[in-house]
Amino acid sequence: MNNKNTDNTSLYPDFLVSIINDRINQYIAEYNDAPCALKNAIRYSLQNGGKRFRPVLCALTAKSLGKNCEPVLPTACAIEFIHTYSLIHDDLPSIDNDDLRRGKPACHKKFGEDIAILTGDALFAEAFNIILRHQEANKDDLARVMLEISSASGADGMVAGQIVDVYYAGKKISGKMLEYMHSKKTGKLITASVRCGAVLSGASEDYINRFGQYAENIGLAFQIADDLIDLESTTAKTGKTTGKDMLQDKNTFPSMYGIEKSRKIASEKVSCAIEIINNMDIERSWLIKIAKFLLQRKN
Amino acid sequence: MNNKNTDNTSLYPDFLVSIINDRINQYIAEYNDAPCALKNAIRYSLQNGGKRFRPVLCALTAKSLGKNCEPVLPTACAIEFIHTYSLIHDDLPSIDNDDLRRGKPACHKKFGEDIAILTGDALFAEAFNIILRHQEANKDDLARVMLEISSASGADGMVAGQIVDVYYAGKKISGKMLEYMHSKKTGKLITASVRCGAVLSGASEDYINRFGQYAENIGLAFQIADDLIDLESTTAKTGKTTGKDMLQDKNTFPSMYGIEKSRKIASEKVSCAIEIINNMDIERSWLIKIAKFLLQRKN
Repeated sequence: MNNKNTDNTSLYPDFLVSIINDRINQYIAEYNDAPCALKNAIRYSLQNGGKRFRPVLCALTAKSLGKNCEPVLPTACAIEFIHTYSLIHDDLPSIDNDDLRRGKPACHKKFGEDIAILTGDALFAEAFNIILRHQEANKDDLARVMLEISSASGADGMVAGQIVDVYYAGKKISGKMLEYMHSKKTGKLITASVRCGAVLSGASEDYINRFGQYAENIGLAFQIADDLIDLESTTAKTGKTTGKDMLQDKNTFPSMYGIEKSRKIASEKVSCAIEIINNMDIERSWLIKIAKFLLQRKN
Repeated sequence: MNNKNTDNTSLYPDFLVSIINDRINQYIAEYNDAPCALKNAIRYSLQNGGKRFRPVLCALTAKSLGKNCEPVLPTACAIEFIHTYSLIHDDLPSIDNDDLRRGKPACHKKFGEDIAILTGDALFAEAFNIILRHQEANKDDLARVMLEISSASGADGMVAGQIVDVYYAGKKISGKMLEYMHSKKTGKLITASVRCGAVLSGASEDYINRFGQYAENIGLAFQIADDLIDLESTTAKTGKTTGKDMLQDKNTFPSMYGIEKSRKIASEKVSCAIEIINNMDIERSWLIKIAKFLLQRKN
């Protein structure tokens, strides 16, 4: 843990990022016996920087309930494994066809499409494996956490949103469908991160749901910020190819509502998230900061 | 259940296949709210025939321990979901590039590569989801079953074998590496099917391991049979493109040992499997029959 990063005036808890990275590195070391090509692609993809937004949220939820972050780290990191697998598959030529990820060649550009597809598959399996081997919790909470995560990832979760995204590229969709798409594609795993942090920290069902509503709001704000960054920023700043949504005729908040209204919607979602948190009896400062951070992010 | 199929003189328990298909159809119906493209691709891939070898093995293991098959069906079907996802991904152009699966267009030929990749991803998530929502068992057994399955699917399981398969295509490998590849690629999930059937039926740790050794042997025999079918059979008979292993310069038992020696190895593996079963205090007839079936299969 790097003390100079614990500056609480920052809107992003960078001190948590290094704790999470250390833990991810521990898990990566467990694949030393895996075939070299797989081990290298796993390491490359997981160590490729990133804000660790989802595990950070999971850990902050535990913190907001007066708990230490460490006990939730296996689940938090497992969710990052799933997020990483989804990025590898999203970047593939037949999906988003993106050559760059965080300023470096996407997994399939570095290792080939076959290895990239299979590395994504491995990361998904290993996410459940990490929880089962490393997450200390009573068995009910363990099953609950895996239910949250598998639901968030599957046919009614992340993949559903991604299918709608590719299927309707170039076709006009309703505002309702746009929100459905984003709430599944990005929102579900972000929501699962927060809900799992709450489950593992002994929150009541009512609080798990309230945390979930907070997360749904910031999940949408996060996606709108992503859409705006794709439109307004440069590849050099973001480390991924920008302007692609428009080129691929993707349905986004800015393409539907324009930049100013999209910003307003994001701001409303963040306000809504903060209001939910303000009505809860928790240590709320970091969850509020990270919500505000979303309105300022540039990459 | 179709009584005319319960003929016990057959080497394959066809009566179980219809029970398993009914259950898979029940689970498919739960995706009615998923996006159409995803729902259709899930249905197409899961209802595409198939021997249901893995769920059949899981159910037969329960039966061999004097239990009913029904209680293990959620896990048995979940494993078929994982097998189906792996076939969808294997058939992709960048991996095995196979246009046909069980006599019909492969998922990516029917729905496009993007939908195929994402459908595989969804099936994987849903496999865990089905166990978590439908498998009745004490929480320890539930966690154990998911550990078996996630280990069998991940970086030390199915994906490891698949990576070695694509990575070493066209390169010479040792007999030891060939066995490693097949034991991971095909063997691990087959072994997990049997071990999970045993776990859910209350077998002792010793028996779970012995069932596992039986399955490792028939898993290799299954793969050798697959290799021989690819070499000797016709596309019309198998419903998939035959002769591809040789065209793609894949490492197989016949390419390394020739046809006769491969047949002999398969036969030895089956004998070994049967010997293990014969030393166990179980109702062994079906597990012996299905092992013998592997030496006769033509597709």
